[in-house]
Amino acid sequence: MSAYEALKLSFHRIACLDEASAVLSWDASAMMPDGGAEARGEQMAVLAGLSHEFLCAPEMGETLAQAQAPEGWDAQNLTLMREAHLRATALPRDLVEAQVRAGRACETIWRAARKTSDFAAVQKALAEVVRLTREGAEILGQALGLSPYEALMSQYQRGINAAQAEVIFTRYEAFLREALPRAEALQAARGHATLPPGPYPEAVQAALARRLSAGAGLNFNAARLDISAHPFCGGTPTDIRITTRYDEADFCAALMGVLHETGHALYEQNLPAAWRRQPVGAAAGMAMHESQSLIVEMQAVRSDAYLSYLAPLAAEAFGKPITVAGLKHRLRRVERSFIRVEADEMTYPAHVLLRFRLEQALLTGGLAVADLPGAWNEGLQALLGITPPDDARGCLQDIHWFDGAIGYFPSYTLGAMAAAQLMAAARKALPDLDGALGRGDLAPLTGWLSAHVHQRGSSAGFNEILVEATGEALNPAYFEAHLTARYLT
Amino acid sequence: MSAYEALKLSFHRIACLDEASAVLSWDASAMMPDGGAEARGEQMAVLAGLSHEFLCAPEMGETLAQAQAPEGWDAQNLTLMREAHLRATALPRDLVEAQVRAGRACETIWRAARKTSDFAAVQKALAEVVRLTREGAEILGQALGLSPYEALMSQYQRGINAAQAEVIFTRYEAFLREALPRAEALQAARGHATLPPGPYPEAVQAALARRLSAGAGLNFNAARLDISAHPFCGGTPTDIRITTRYDEADFCAALMGVLHETGHALYEQNLPAAWRRQPVGAAAGMAMHESQSLIVEMQAVRSDAYLSYLAPLAAEAFGKPITVAGLKHRLRRVERSFIRVEADEMTYPAHVLLRFRLEQALLTGGLAVADLPGAWNEGLQALLGITPPDDARGCLQDIHWFDGAIGYFPSYTLGAMAAAQLMAAARKALPDLDGALGRGDLAPLTGWLSAHVHQRGSSAGFNEILVEATGEALNPAYFEAHLTARYLT
Repeated sequence: MSAYEALKLSFHRIACLDEASAVLSWDASAMMPDGGAEARGEQMAVLAGLSHEFLCAPEMGETLAQAQAPEGWDAQNLTLMREAHLRATALPRDLVEAQVRAGRACETIWRAARKTSDFAAVQKALAEVVRLTREGAEILGQALGLSPYEALMSQYQRGINAAQAEVIFTRYEAFLREALPRAEALQAARGHATLPPGPYPEAVQAALARRLSAGAGLNFNAARLDISAHPFCGGTPTDIRITTRYDEADFCAALMGVLHETGHALYEQNLPAAWRRQPVGAAAGMAMHESQSLIVEMQAVRSDAYLSYLAPLAAEAFGKPITVAGLKHRLRRVERSFIRVEADEMTYPAHVLLRFRLEQALLTGGLAVADLPGAWNEGLQALLGITPPDDARGCLQDIHWFDGAIGYFPSYTLGAMAAAQLMAAARKALPDLDGALGRGDLAPLTGWLSAHVHQRGSSAGFNEILVEATGEALNPAYFEAHLTARYLT
Repeated sequence: MSAYEALKLSFHRIACLDEASAVLSWDASAMMPDGGAEARGEQMAVLAGLSHEFLCAPEMGETLAQAQAPEGWDAQNLTLMREAHLRATALPRDLVEAQVRAGRACETIWRAARKTSDFAAVQKALAEVVRLTREGAEILGQALGLSPYEALMSQYQRGINAAQAEVIFTRYEAFLREALPRAEALQAARGHATLPPGPYPEAVQAALARRLSAGAGLNFNAARLDISAHPFCGGTPTDIRITTRYDEADFCAALMGVLHETGHALYEQNLPAAWRRQPVGAAAGMAMHESQSLIVEMQAVRSDAYLSYLAPLAAEAFGKPITVAGLKHRLRRVERSFIRVEADEMTYPAHVLLRFRLEQALLTGGLAVADLPGAWNEGLQALLGITPPDDARGCLQDIHWFDGAIGYFPSYTLGAMAAAQLMAAARKALPDLDGALGRGDLAPLTGWLSAHVHQRGSSAGFNEILVEATGEALNPAYFEAHLTARYLT
């Protein structure tokens, strides 16, 4: 067996362990009784520990040094193997353990501090997390030949860097300054169409969500839809587990949530089966993943065509006068708000931009942790013209930093912008795309995405996939055009 | 760290892997979409492979050789560790792989052969399974100082051997010869009380089953009840997963199934937490496990007292005239029949005795595989006075042998007999036991079992636990007395 073949076997085994962890993680969120939590933690720690141990094994380092790659996907696969091993071994064990401990401690304090909006309570713990993250980012950056921030950002998304993101986000900042007031004015001028009051029975919501998800292309012979406190898409490519939660006063939240997760799920279901469990066969990154959830939820499902399909279907399912106008009012409205996860698609990038700049400043040390609340409030004021009334609705709202995750935030908006760009290319390639959406049929769109994104796996990076699929690297003009068409006309 | 402490850590890790497998296995039966089957097989193979690899590791052999046990439970724990390592390493890898391959091939052929009642089709494959099982049993027996059959039987239950079982079963054979016709005559003389026809809605059955299971002591903060094609009790001690299936024409099957699995679940939930994930902390074996399911299902739940509690409860839940007499007619009736899994508690041991004798003859070579159908039919005729009309209802009915499982069958009846003996001792210790059963309250019984069986873990073998709990080793007189009281008076 060649060195490369041996590596493929090793990565296959690691992937099997990670798949087992993915199912156990889904179970913990969707099925497990409370009493199982402690034991599940130990089970998952053992699986993660073994996966990491195999990835770090000195013999793997030796085999990687010897291995020669054939060309094409195999060459890329070997490159990704080397990077994974390098990332896993670059940091001293002591540092990794200190990071895990600090992250856990900080997260616990943060949960309490957020409730009482008490930044001072978590400041010291966050400073320690930032310090250890910086220390790791510097080592990683040296190993990978990247800046510390790039070293972190690239673990979530390869193929687009912070400098490129900065240019794109800055351009969007200018767009937003002009577009948001106009959108608000147009919105105010329009009449209020409302959805009828609930209750919207959970079982009816679930059946409708399932029908729409299947209509979007999700194969339920290889997927499940369940309930969890925080919706997610988990499981494995041939056994996808998506979750949502139901509010009987509002059917839209669960429905949009399911369709968002369906976009993630379609990506996983359509990954190249021949490369299953190899690094090159995995999804291309978090920004690309988010583009797939958002192209379904934001681009396809909230389109005029699809809402015209959805309104009568929902009206029949719930036995209530649900109109297209009512859906548009509920699902397509801009609003300056404090909370990122509740933001509309036009203001969402402002929340991301704020975090993108602040986390870089925190990492370089240009911003002291003590000054974060002030910088946050000033930043939001500059971007959206509003100031959070307290830190709970300000810099304490997201778990990410307190858990040691720096470099992730840009993925959300890079994904949203890529979704618009991919949609524009798909519309060009599929002349009857809107006709199909009007019949609730996402198969043409999904087929196009499968060929141009899903089936690419990790054979290329973010911008490279976009160039081949759409003719150019990420260009925010498509997202701006989308918003202009939807909110400014 | 001492050698023994290192071993405890190793066994902890192995147990975590096995727990992960248990949850994945439950998921495969109760939750997984069909599309996930192939991937799940690979995930579980990797987990089982690692568990086996760790157990067989040469370093573990060396550490076991060095380790010194403190006294008491630790000493027993070390003994069980040594036995587990010996069992895992005794067989050459080639032989184990040949056994797995032969078992899989034979099982596949058997599934088809059973449908068409075609023993000839599977004869050759079964002969190969028996040959490889014999080869392994001889090696194992030499390593453990046991006969080949004992080497197999003891992997399912320690602390009672085949010679002891033979004496007990032979005595029961004589009892049955006299008791069965008398029970049939008494039964025929009694009037027929029937249960009302269905439908018994699945949701109502499930709610009732859950209520009774909780009443029997199952803590649903650390357990789930779900649906699967073949009911079982799985999961882990702090996260038990029991399953059943529902037939809307008959609520009794699911209810009794759930209460049977509840007995298994209570055993797992009450195992000594301080010894979690150590060999000495596990249940004492399959016969003891079966005694715990049967003491709940057969001894407690089918008692006069409990059925008097159940009848009005079921009547109210289903809104039908369900009477104690109707329940007794459905749940306490003897009948000579061909299928083991459908047999009543009086004739069930005859099915086991038949298999116990035939599997020993197959293993020693005293019975050729080609002669199995004839020997089976003669045996059943001698025991129950009936002859199967075909091999599907004869020697093809159970999966066990075709899958390579020889030595398991005695556990069912040893468990049924132990259940009667434990119930007699519990009744002596708990004067108001029947009063509590009449209120649907199994807490006194469960508390007694917890102290005398569950909390013992594997600190002692089958007969040793019985001696300490009841004053004597397994004595079939208690089971006979139970049957006499229920069916012959």
